[in-house]
Amino acid sequence: MKDKKSKVKIYLDHNATTPLHPEVRRAMIAAMDNFGNPSSLHTFGRQARALVEESRQKIASFIAAKSEEIIFVGSGSEANNTVLNLFSCNSSKCNGEHFNKRKIITTKIEHPCILEAAGCLQDRGQEIKYIGVDKRGKINLEELKATLGDNSALVSIMLANNEIGTIQDLKEISRIVHGKGALLHTDAIQAVGKIPVNVNDLEIDYLSFSAHKIYGPKGIGALYVRKGSPFCPFVRGGHQERGRRAGTENTLGIIGLAKAIEMRQKEMVEENKRLKILKEKFKKGIEKNISDVYFNGHPKEGLVSTLNVSFSGVEGEAVLLYLDLEGIFVSTGSACASGSLGPSHVLLATGIPSEHAHGSIRMSMGRGTSQKDIDYVIKKLTQVIQRVRKISSVNNEVKYG
Amino acid sequence: MKDKKSKVKIYLDHNATTPLHPEVRRAMIAAMDNFGNPSSLHTFGRQARALVEESRQKIASFIAAKSEEIIFVGSGSEANNTVLNLFSCNSSKCNGEHFNKRKIITTKIEHPCILEAAGCLQDRGQEIKYIGVDKRGKINLEELKATLGDNSALVSIMLANNEIGTIQDLKEISRIVHGKGALLHTDAIQAVGKIPVNVNDLEIDYLSFSAHKIYGPKGIGALYVRKGSPFCPFVRGGHQERGRRAGTENTLGIIGLAKAIEMRQKEMVEENKRLKILKEKFKKGIEKNISDVYFNGHPKEGLVSTLNVSFSGVEGEAVLLYLDLEGIFVSTGSACASGSLGPSHVLLATGIPSEHAHGSIRMSMGRGTSQKDIDYVIKKLTQVIQRVRKISSVNNEVKYG
Repeated sequence: MKDKKSKVKIYLDHNATTPLHPEVRRAMIAAMDNFGNPSSLHTFGRQARALVEESRQKIASFIAAKSEEIIFVGSGSEANNTVLNLFSCNSSKCNGEHFNKRKIITTKIEHPCILEAAGCLQDRGQEIKYIGVDKRGKINLEELKATLGDNSALVSIMLANNEIGTIQDLKEISRIVHGKGALLHTDAIQAVGKIPVNVNDLEIDYLSFSAHKIYGPKGIGALYVRKGSPFCPFVRGGHQERGRRAGTENTLGIIGLAKAIEMRQKEMVEENKRLKILKEKFKKGIEKNISDVYFNGHPKEGLVSTLNVSFSGVEGEAVLLYLDLEGIFVSTGSACASGSLGPSHVLLATGIPSEHAHGSIRMSMGRGTSQKDIDYVIKKLTQVIQRVRKISSVNNEVKYG
Repeated sequence: MKDKKSKVKIYLDHNATTPLHPEVRRAMIAAMDNFGNPSSLHTFGRQARALVEESRQKIASFIAAKSEEIIFVGSGSEANNTVLNLFSCNSSKCNGEHFNKRKIITTKIEHPCILEAAGCLQDRGQEIKYIGVDKRGKINLEELKATLGDNSALVSIMLANNEIGTIQDLKEISRIVHGKGALLHTDAIQAVGKIPVNVNDLEIDYLSFSAHKIYGPKGIGALYVRKGSPFCPFVRGGHQERGRRAGTENTLGIIGLAKAIEMRQKEMVEENKRLKILKEKFKKGIEKNISDVYFNGHPKEGLVSTLNVSFSGVEGEAVLLYLDLEGIFVSTGSACASGSLGPSHVLLATGIPSEHAHGSIRMSMGRGTSQKDIDYVIKKLTQVIQRVRKISSVNNEVKYG
């Protein structure tokens, strides 16, 4: 495959990860000499501490949080695992209203890190319920109401879905959840920096996000914990993060996250306007040139960057590899699930036929995506789908002929 | 304090963290454009995957491990927490010989992340035993033997102590631990890259280490898990790290760790020879110029970079701050414990009087430390100790006079 590589490089996998923003790159390189341990009492330590706290302030204010409500962690997955594990503890020290409730509610379209963490708790005897979604990926609020009961400690519902982009009505959800005395966590890893997120407007208790989905570095995430909400550290040890997450602070990562957030603050609104137009043209181009296509996700309440399409009669993975040869980089679903063989659990939850789920690809645009890119992708995608459908029909003839 | 700052900058806190090695810095900057998600199937993803696996190979071979025995994590603390939590699970899926044993043994001089993780398990009903040490910081092997019994799942003993530098006889310890059918974990965060570590020679089952103690970046650690040893993920989710640690790989951090290890491979032996001579001169200079000093740790079997000294009649924190004004950066113990007010738990475990523990500082040298630095530090330290002792005696006169 190597020799046939295209010179074109069109990256349409921004939901998997993003390139560093040039300003983030610059800020991280500039910070490389400030190497002190923020916990050290000497000058180098205090300088590093100041950088960390300045970053925390910037990041907090972006989601309307207080500085002390932000805990830095190693990834979005760690943030999610931290929250899921909060109410599973049987320690005598973990007590209070929510620790006596044993039910955790989440949805069928969460990221694997929520589903796996929940699954592990379930294996350990905890009650976990999974709420379904409609065909556009919106969670079923009636089912949520019926499931909550009076013994739910925590509800965890992602804000914007990583595969199909559907955005949940979190304000309405938080009203329902709080009405039953439960706490609300949202995995906002695909949302923070892509849509406006205000923890007070949405009345969220816990919120996870990370840097590498918004042009920041990998290996750094953050967890918002509303002041007064029950909390118990996941990684235990030193007094870092006010005793809420041990481990020497990843200063470079934190500075990178803060700069990424700062740039989102400047660029997000304009970029979203641009991407919205691009996405519409993208959809129309596909519809015009390719038959039997189905757009997954919500037509209006979804990320403007994310286009998830099913093509009948193809395998998504074949499409991905043929596009790769043309220098176009897409995904068949979540990169975090790419080791698994089955069709996307998110698409199956929306009720689409398994065949369509198998034949879907996710194209997620970003700040570097241009109209020219999209025109090229439509052209190449049309050719690739034709080719794959032809091979697939020949194979079927051989198989069944 | 700001105006009085010295132009001299002598960093003697390498056990807290280290500056990036210039080669690490270069490697990280060079890798900043390889932003793909190693889990993505397209070209950018595969390129990132190749970098991660190449790094893993380098890192593994440095400690004589196999590539697949290395799991990348967010910090040394996370590596330690992962292991401590292995045998606490009551899931029906976590079974086998070691899961039926419920005792975990560790020592009184471990890093806070081991002690806090163990303390949490204890609060949840798990049996935890803490082995003591002698005055030089060597753990009591007879006590270990007596404590093991037949129901110990795991023993966790640090290889080189972060505060006093004492190196344990891990080969002898592993013989004892394995003789009783338990598994051995070592927190080697202060050891890997500072002394030769071979997981096969030492017969270790689990080993934690991190990058930022050896001129690599913060926010990246690694856990060695011997092939066939029981394992259960701590951060759950995607299939990353063969399903053993979820979260998009911190590619920059991993590349930084690999480069740091590569440079240690080249520089460690020569540097240790140099530091050994420097440490002897340092000790002699202090003994010659300052009365009533006590060197903590083992005189021979300790890190050559680490000098922990107690001065009678002073508060370590005052010494730290006065040295800071002279541009000399030291620590009073572990940076991770710097939020706590009490004297070092490590020093107290060695049986030194509380007053001496209060009056101790840790000076940890590194690749940038020169003979000239040490001469300057001896001079300034002598003045500072005189000054602090004078103030302290005046205060005592006022108090008791």
